[in-house]
Amino acid sequence: MTEPSTTPARPAGDDDRAVLADFAELSAIGATDAGGVERQAATDADARTRAWLTRWLHDRGFTTTTDRIGNLFGLREWVPGAPYVLVGSHLDSQPRGGRYDGAYGVLAAAHAAHRADRAFAASGTAPAFNVAVVDWFNEEGSRFKPSMMGSAVYTGKMDLEEAWAVTDTAGVTVKEALAAIGALGEQDGPRAAFAAEIHIEQGRILDREGVRIGLVESNWAAHKYQISVLGDQSHTGSTAMEDRRDALLGAARVIVALRELADRYPGVLHTSAGQIFVHPNSPVVVAREAQLHLDLRSADPDVLQEADALLDREFAAIEASTGVRIVKTGDHVWPVTPYQPEGVALARAAAEELGLSHRPMLTLAGHDSTHLKDIVPTVMLFVPSVEGVSHNEREFTRDADICAGVDLLTRVVQRLCTGALDGGRSR
Amino acid sequence: MTEPSTTPARPAGDDDRAVLADFAELSAIGATDAGGVERQAATDADARTRAWLTRWLHDRGFTTTTDRIGNLFGLREWVPGAPYVLVGSHLDSQPRGGRYDGAYGVLAAAHAAHRADRAFAASGTAPAFNVAVVDWFNEEGSRFKPSMMGSAVYTGKMDLEEAWAVTDTAGVTVKEALAAIGALGEQDGPRAAFAAEIHIEQGRILDREGVRIGLVESNWAAHKYQISVLGDQSHTGSTAMEDRRDALLGAARVIVALRELADRYPGVLHTSAGQIFVHPNSPVVVAREAQLHLDLRSADPDVLQEADALLDREFAAIEASTGVRIVKTGDHVWPVTPYQPEGVALARAAAEELGLSHRPMLTLAGHDSTHLKDIVPTVMLFVPSVEGVSHNEREFTRDADICAGVDLLTRVVQRLCTGALDGGRSR
Repeated sequence: MTEPSTTPARPAGDDDRAVLADFAELSAIGATDAGGVERQAATDADARTRAWLTRWLHDRGFTTTTDRIGNLFGLREWVPGAPYVLVGSHLDSQPRGGRYDGAYGVLAAAHAAHRADRAFAASGTAPAFNVAVVDWFNEEGSRFKPSMMGSAVYTGKMDLEEAWAVTDTAGVTVKEALAAIGALGEQDGPRAAFAAEIHIEQGRILDREGVRIGLVESNWAAHKYQISVLGDQSHTGSTAMEDRRDALLGAARVIVALRELADRYPGVLHTSAGQIFVHPNSPVVVAREAQLHLDLRSADPDVLQEADALLDREFAAIEASTGVRIVKTGDHVWPVTPYQPEGVALARAAAEELGLSHRPMLTLAGHDSTHLKDIVPTVMLFVPSVEGVSHNEREFTRDADICAGVDLLTRVVQRLCTGALDGGRSR
Repeated sequence: MTEPSTTPARPAGDDDRAVLADFAELSAIGATDAGGVERQAATDADARTRAWLTRWLHDRGFTTTTDRIGNLFGLREWVPGAPYVLVGSHLDSQPRGGRYDGAYGVLAAAHAAHRADRAFAASGTAPAFNVAVVDWFNEEGSRFKPSMMGSAVYTGKMDLEEAWAVTDTAGVTVKEALAAIGALGEQDGPRAAFAAEIHIEQGRILDREGVRIGLVESNWAAHKYQISVLGDQSHTGSTAMEDRRDALLGAARVIVALRELADRYPGVLHTSAGQIFVHPNSPVVVAREAQLHLDLRSADPDVLQEADALLDREFAAIEASTGVRIVKTGDHVWPVTPYQPEGVALARAAAEELGLSHRPMLTLAGHDSTHLKDIVPTVMLFVPSVEGVSHNEREFTRDADICAGVDLLTRVVQRLCTGALDGGRSR
């Protein structure tokens, strides 16, 4: 670990220049003035990004297919009928999101698969598995909830019809939105043998430590749920304070309590409320209802459980002090589950061979690979995010780290395709 | 004051039956399932309510005119060229509002003016002033801010062009919305000599005390302002808690602080935040900005000033603890101003003559008469609201109180038209 991530991993070559040039092209689609992108799922900007990737893949001998939930696959079938190494991430972004989040992982996957294809052709090596570059649909979940929708449906964790029926705030369903951009496929995606994903860290650990690669061993557990805070609509001026049952005040107390909960477990528990809908949301009306999306995450399932119990007690106290009712309307739990240790070992060995500094990590954010690892052995890699900035137009990863990540992912994909992790399970 | 508001004021006659039948018709326009109405300013439901009133007025010999800001006037010109007694309220409602708020006052005004017209004709009395029934445009301010827009423009407190340029959340301007319902007049409204308004109390004082009429002596002062809470967009999962500058958390702390401020001055200070807009309002993104509309009211201007100062200190504390910035983006103050005492005395005498129990009151809510009283002597009357419920579909006022209010308003309008308050000022 003597090589800091701020220095080039090696002199830049044609492959690096191709990655950086493609990334610049990709980042121009849906670009915002402040250096980010806005490409929410199944919007026109998302469609143009997908079209860009499709052309790129076709130009390099891949075929493409789209499944029923809009996951886009670029296929290279070396072994007819064999299952696939799925390598990818997502092209959709948050509103005014960063240009690296997801898009880097898809582009890295495309380059890695293409380099592996060239290498197999050049060496005459016969891979054991095929490769598919994947753009998982709607990872961000900003337009359509929940996040990681495409990989959830692919892995059977979410019902297709249920996902199709989800609406955005304008009432457009996922199915309608997919059809509108021509991304509503009529078949399933390819069968998976293994999976891999590379992503920016979205935290500051690698950046602070000057380490180039994070080898993800596990995800944090997350408990996401929606609540409705129910009050009574009244006049902001004339209603006596003691007669009010103010849904927005109840929601505000929940948001504050949620933050205080995180402060009780410094570094161990992350909490947040990022979305609120208030009814009627009129300046002179005490709100009758507020809907909140709550998000609690920890690497320690016991802490998460304790936090849930404490929050329930807070809900009861808020109900008692404000007269509102708090009703849970949706609930979604990800447990702490490890990435397969043999995959981590494979990636570590590859990083060592390439001379890339590395460290084991957990992921606090959800990724498509969080779903994939539950059905096939999956490798998850991180590259540094400068200052940990993410879901923000200022998101930034250095070019040298971008290129090193593609190098490592290429080696991982090659190994997975040649069956390095194949204990006979997946064929 | 021996006669409780729950008993009929007198046996119901044809006039009462006409008021109640008309109110039932009016309440059917834009009716909601739960017994309220939804007729926000310049919507289709508002237009249908205005058309209903226009027909009612034409059928009884009134002419109608609409001014540039959409105030609808029903004119009865007994004395050519003389100024008018403006009697009215507003037909627009909150989203899922009550059926009495505003609409009762307009209907009462129409009946009072019509009865006065009949009485003058029958008795051969010559009034000194003309009468105009008024539907003041956009009193509620839910679709277009600020509230009491029509009366503000009429009284010269708000610039016409500025009011026209206000947009709703869909980007439609007031001018466009008025044109769309055919309510964009091309002239000014009639000149005022006096004004009168009757309204439900929207509080529980009359109901609790069993008093039938409130004689409004003054309004509470109000300080309304908008703030922007500015944070930094980041990832809800992976961003370290100490690195966050969460705009929604900052806004939540403001909402809680605002309520705690009211609790420091029990019964003396009302505070609320009824409207919030969050950006990007995505479930997995720490918000970069939250806009809040704050509302502080008190009968005591010193309390209001003290509360403003305390709130500024709270803002500084919230900025320090959460890393957000709080910026005031709009500001609107109504001072405490009395209704003219001679108008209160006139209304008191009329209530005594009719045997209606009464008491002096302040108004916590703003009304169109709050603006009118600053340009001409103005009478403001309240009838009881059962349990004080308002801006709510359950809003309710008993039929006997409805009818008693119209009787009193009729007598007040007659006196104002015959010049009972005319010290030569207004002609």
